[in-house]
Amino acid sequence: MAGETQSSHQVVIIGGGFGGLYAAKELGRAPVQVTLIDKRNFHLFQPLLYQVATGTLSPADISSPLRGILSQNKNTQVRLDEVVDVDPEQKKLTLRGGELAYDTLIVATGVSHHYFGNDHWKPTAPGLKTVEDALEMRRRIFMAFEAAEKEPDPVARQAWLTFVIVGGGPTGVELAGAIAELAFKTLKQDFRNIDTAEAKILLLEGLDRILPPYPPELSAKAAESLSKLGVTTRTKTLVTNIENNIVTAKQGDAIEQIFARTILWAAGVKASAMGKVLEQRAGATLDRVGRVTVNPDLSIPNHSDIFVIGDLALYTHQGDKPLPGIAPVAIQQGQYVAKLVQERLNGQPIASFYYSDSGNLAVIGQNQAVANIGRWKLSGALAWFIWIFAHIYYLIEFDNKLIVLLQWGWNYFTRNRGARLITGEGSLVQVDVDTSGNYSVPANKSPVEV
Amino acid sequence: MAGETQSSHQVVIIGGGFGGLYAAKELGRAPVQVTLIDKRNFHLFQPLLYQVATGTLSPADISSPLRGILSQNKNTQVRLDEVVDVDPEQKKLTLRGGELAYDTLIVATGVSHHYFGNDHWKPTAPGLKTVEDALEMRRRIFMAFEAAEKEPDPVARQAWLTFVIVGGGPTGVELAGAIAELAFKTLKQDFRNIDTAEAKILLLEGLDRILPPYPPELSAKAAESLSKLGVTTRTKTLVTNIENNIVTAKQGDAIEQIFARTILWAAGVKASAMGKVLEQRAGATLDRVGRVTVNPDLSIPNHSDIFVIGDLALYTHQGDKPLPGIAPVAIQQGQYVAKLVQERLNGQPIASFYYSDSGNLAVIGQNQAVANIGRWKLSGALAWFIWIFAHIYYLIEFDNKLIVLLQWGWNYFTRNRGARLITGEGSLVQVDVDTSGNYSVPANKSPVEV
Repeated sequence: MAGETQSSHQVVIIGGGFGGLYAAKELGRAPVQVTLIDKRNFHLFQPLLYQVATGTLSPADISSPLRGILSQNKNTQVRLDEVVDVDPEQKKLTLRGGELAYDTLIVATGVSHHYFGNDHWKPTAPGLKTVEDALEMRRRIFMAFEAAEKEPDPVARQAWLTFVIVGGGPTGVELAGAIAELAFKTLKQDFRNIDTAEAKILLLEGLDRILPPYPPELSAKAAESLSKLGVTTRTKTLVTNIENNIVTAKQGDAIEQIFARTILWAAGVKASAMGKVLEQRAGATLDRVGRVTVNPDLSIPNHSDIFVIGDLALYTHQGDKPLPGIAPVAIQQGQYVAKLVQERLNGQPIASFYYSDSGNLAVIGQNQAVANIGRWKLSGALAWFIWIFAHIYYLIEFDNKLIVLLQWGWNYFTRNRGARLITGEGSLVQVDVDTSGNYSVPANKSPVEV
Repeated sequence: MAGETQSSHQVVIIGGGFGGLYAAKELGRAPVQVTLIDKRNFHLFQPLLYQVATGTLSPADISSPLRGILSQNKNTQVRLDEVVDVDPEQKKLTLRGGELAYDTLIVATGVSHHYFGNDHWKPTAPGLKTVEDALEMRRRIFMAFEAAEKEPDPVARQAWLTFVIVGGGPTGVELAGAIAELAFKTLKQDFRNIDTAEAKILLLEGLDRILPPYPPELSAKAAESLSKLGVTTRTKTLVTNIENNIVTAKQGDAIEQIFARTILWAAGVKASAMGKVLEQRAGATLDRVGRVTVNPDLSIPNHSDIFVIGDLALYTHQGDKPLPGIAPVAIQQGQYVAKLVQERLNGQPIASFYYSDSGNLAVIGQNQAVANIGRWKLSGALAWFIWIFAHIYYLIEFDNKLIVLLQWGWNYFTRNRGARLITGEGSLVQVDVDTSGNYSVPANKSPVEV
């Protein structure tokens, strides 16, 4: 392998998300050696993760093995490992499993949740970034209905049937809509002791409207669709505490305490650890949440051979605010850096990165979505179909994801959710705990997808 | 619920496998109250579990939520719980989460693995009964290739590429064939430092041929197909020890030690704990592996209101040996007992249970299977297609399992395996361990399906 790396320009990409993967794909035919490093052996199609969390899709439906995607790129190695340090002078990475030299480094390690300094909320209010997160959410959501089914006390039962989603961004809206469809449609016939329609689904947002990145009229449309689905939306509402399954929310001067067994976190992100590493080793500048300030060409100051792309990058050279942390930005940045690397080898200059905005989409429920595409502001079924096909278009770039379209088609006509399984050690332990009435999160247990 | 149970004849079914589920389906329109108790909230289509273990299907593809399957049966309750004791005099069950009275009890709790008194082999050589088992196998199989890719020492690398399957029954044959297809076809292009074709796949069977329940000529055909696929089959070979990733196998007087990082257990089963409970409480007779001897009508001696069906039942009243522990037997027994219960309520007698043998099928690889159907002994592609459609036929009785046919169709033409994901806490920890060279099984970690 050493021989290989010396044989030509070595491009090392850290992270197999949208940014890193599209950079690697673009470099597949280039006269360089590419190494893609990821902790996981698969690429995750994160925009659909909420459908795993709510039992519509299986993790494998939205995941593709990185080796499979890149197997035809003979200049490309996939390395299952984790980067712990960077030495910009020696142009060397320290991995958990060894060292690796680079000529060009592309950092695309993304972001994780952010509890605004309240990390102790995490066990009670899990976030949604990884497959494991999604499985844990799914286990909690479906176990909550099971626990309610056998809970004799009406107050305790209502707590099992109360779902609080913190954060009114796309993920929060999608989770709230999907849980509402579960409670009010999918599961309606399944229980004997409870009426799942008694479920309360609350979506809490700190700003004055949900989907803040969208035009106000679309936020209003989304709120309207959610309330039709049975979701209660509270804006200008700040969560001040989460403890013993009680969410304390502050709306103006009014303080409310919500007793809810299922609390899902969809608010705020913080940059992955590589940001700090670049700050310490390469003098990179980080913003409040740890994102790395990049030059117009996505390199970092004083290190033209180190690029940061995707959610981890803070790109402020376009429009009035930084580019959002969404897949299309990461994809375009990955492709841009891949081209830049090749042009450099040819001694060609390349223009600054420019993001061509293909619009924003958020789904609320069946036939319900909002879309902001250029001058168009769409909502309802049309936006929903655009959402479906936009996602299928990207999924199809990978291996067998046509299956997702078929799964959706089937679900659409049957309202069925085939993946609503409760699994993992936690699943049964949970049952005992439920019936005892003393709920506690088996945080030490990793969920098991099914 | 108490009112409900007294309102009419209360049938309690323990276990939502093939036996219990088909009994419940059959009783859906009967003038009785039915309660189906299971530890899990889903029915698992176990015959396809090996396809989850080898990355072809997702757990949800072969699992169906029990509530969903039975939601239209208004006389039926699904209870997510576990039975810990039976009181035949009081006709009462003790559950982890309470008590439950019955008029008729149907026990269908199946079997688990049996290490012939060597339970300490289990962490090194996991078996395949639950979804979690399958995910753990999948994690180990795919992680083994990853570990080999980064292992510099050739001997250690070969150990990562050596897969030993203990037990030449249908499950062992199916696992061996599927792993061979992974190593020699699916993954061939995916790695850079290793040639996956250097993998050794050994299938060890104690008797003189694999698939002992089948006619000798089919066993020979199966062995032939396996060797074409690259599987080495050793018959008359007893495993005497499994330790430090070394399998000690005895063939006649020859003793062999096989250094293998992946050892899968497909030999022997033992009855679930309910067998012992029935022995202690109801004086039931158990065989060597704990199966419950039943009367010709599947009840147990002196307790005409307690029935045992499926893998847990030892039914010796037909043919020269007891009925095998396979899905068709369990299904027919479940349906039989459901009819018997109804006839009894009408005061009608009913003939003894008779198993109508629809034949045996085992798949070896793509286009390769063996089938023993009545007088017909088939092998190759025809048997394979019969296998496909026999399984689809049963799957389609549940919710959305047409998706499996589509997934198979796609895989058939692309040789793709979309579900070859490595997940769970174990996945990354594993990486470190791998690179350190000291392999140890994180047995305390539950795998995470994806």
